[in-house]
Amino acid sequence: MDAALVCHVGYAIDGQPYVIPTLHARDGDTILLHGHAKARTLLHAGAGNPVCIAVTHVDGLVLARSIFNHSINYRSATLYGAGRLLTGRDEKMDALFRFSEKLLPGRWDDVRPLTEQGFAATAIVAVDIDDAAAKIREGMPKDEPEDLGFPTWVGVVPMRQVLEAPLADEHTPPATPLPGYLAVPTASPGDWRWAGATQEA
Amino acid sequence: MDAALVCHVGYAIDGQPYVIPTLHARDGDTILLHGHAKARTLLHAGAGNPVCIAVTHVDGLVLARSIFNHSINYRSATLYGAGRLLTGRDEKMDALFRFSEKLLPGRWDDVRPLTEQGFAATAIVAVDIDDAAAKIREGMPKDEPEDLGFPTWVGVVPMRQVLEAPLADEHTPPATPLPGYLAVPTASPGDWRWAGATQEA
Repeated sequence: MDAALVCHVGYAIDGQPYVIPTLHARDGDTILLHGHAKARTLLHAGAGNPVCIAVTHVDGLVLARSIFNHSINYRSATLYGAGRLLTGRDEKMDALFRFSEKLLPGRWDDVRPLTEQGFAATAIVAVDIDDAAAKIREGMPKDEPEDLGFPTWVGVVPMRQVLEAPLADEHTPPATPLPGYLAVPTASPGDWRWAGATQEA
Repeated sequence: MDAALVCHVGYAIDGQPYVIPTLHARDGDTILLHGHAKARTLLHAGAGNPVCIAVTHVDGLVLARSIFNHSINYRSATLYGAGRLLTGRDEKMDALFRFSEKLLPGRWDDVRPLTEQGFAATAIVAVDIDDAAAKIREGMPKDEPEDLGFPTWVGVVPMRQVLEAPLADEHTPPATPLPGYLAVPTASPGDWRWAGATQEA
């Protein structure tokens, strides 16, 4: 979960499924979901309804000797729980800080703080995890023994998500130093940039 | 859709939402979903129930002058429709071929064909798209005019998914040539490897 920037949240409303890509953060065994204060699906979850939260990292293509054994390498997690809308000022502000810290540790102190308007326009739904499953596929293809002599190239093509060089906007004076949290050495191994998305030097 | 290797499929079963990462291919306005022949959620969709299919490409971090205007750049699509299980031999084989061609054009001819067992162990569900929505965020942050002088670094950190150098398995003789579809120049611009995931030189 921590290695993913975005999760996919599933909702069931009147028998119709919805899947919405959503920014998330984590507070222990509670997942925090972030959205607009008027987002219908998020408010549905916030009213105590069940949600399913999925994250998937695609790590590579797996080329086997038979079509059937082709696959992908991946790490996925699926979490289940019911949502509750955060309404207390302190718990909501704490959640917003967690989102900021997850995205870029230290950024919170470098920018203009939240206004009351911005605070009110944001909804945070907390989902206490009731149940969860994880699946991982890694490594080389698993061919049938009788296929091992089949004459074709077999192996794995690794995939990863990378960050590229930061691009400043036109209002940033050229002499403005790049913040430390955008430099490679500040990213810790638990950071999503290193766990799921490896930052390029 | 074509630029994504994996989609997230949402199901609503007895009021409970499920989100399952799934390989997909496309046949015109029909999305093909691939899974195990015994996958409960996929068979639920195959029985004519509604699904929601989401793909999301994360393209970058957006650092603004206010916490509130921080965002990510992304491209997402959400599709709605009802599933039907492919049961005809020809339509199912055609779908499997489309999956293979989407993953790696030309691979189908280089490997041992499907056995009856493999064919029977795979379920394909076709979803005719009834409704769809797409969202894109790109470019620099949108700060409030009064924030433009705030002294901090502001801009975008682009993200992309890349393929790395292929790794052969231990049973591939060292002299085996790398197939053309694993070399950079063979990937066409419409290919997911170029649209969503750019292959590194």
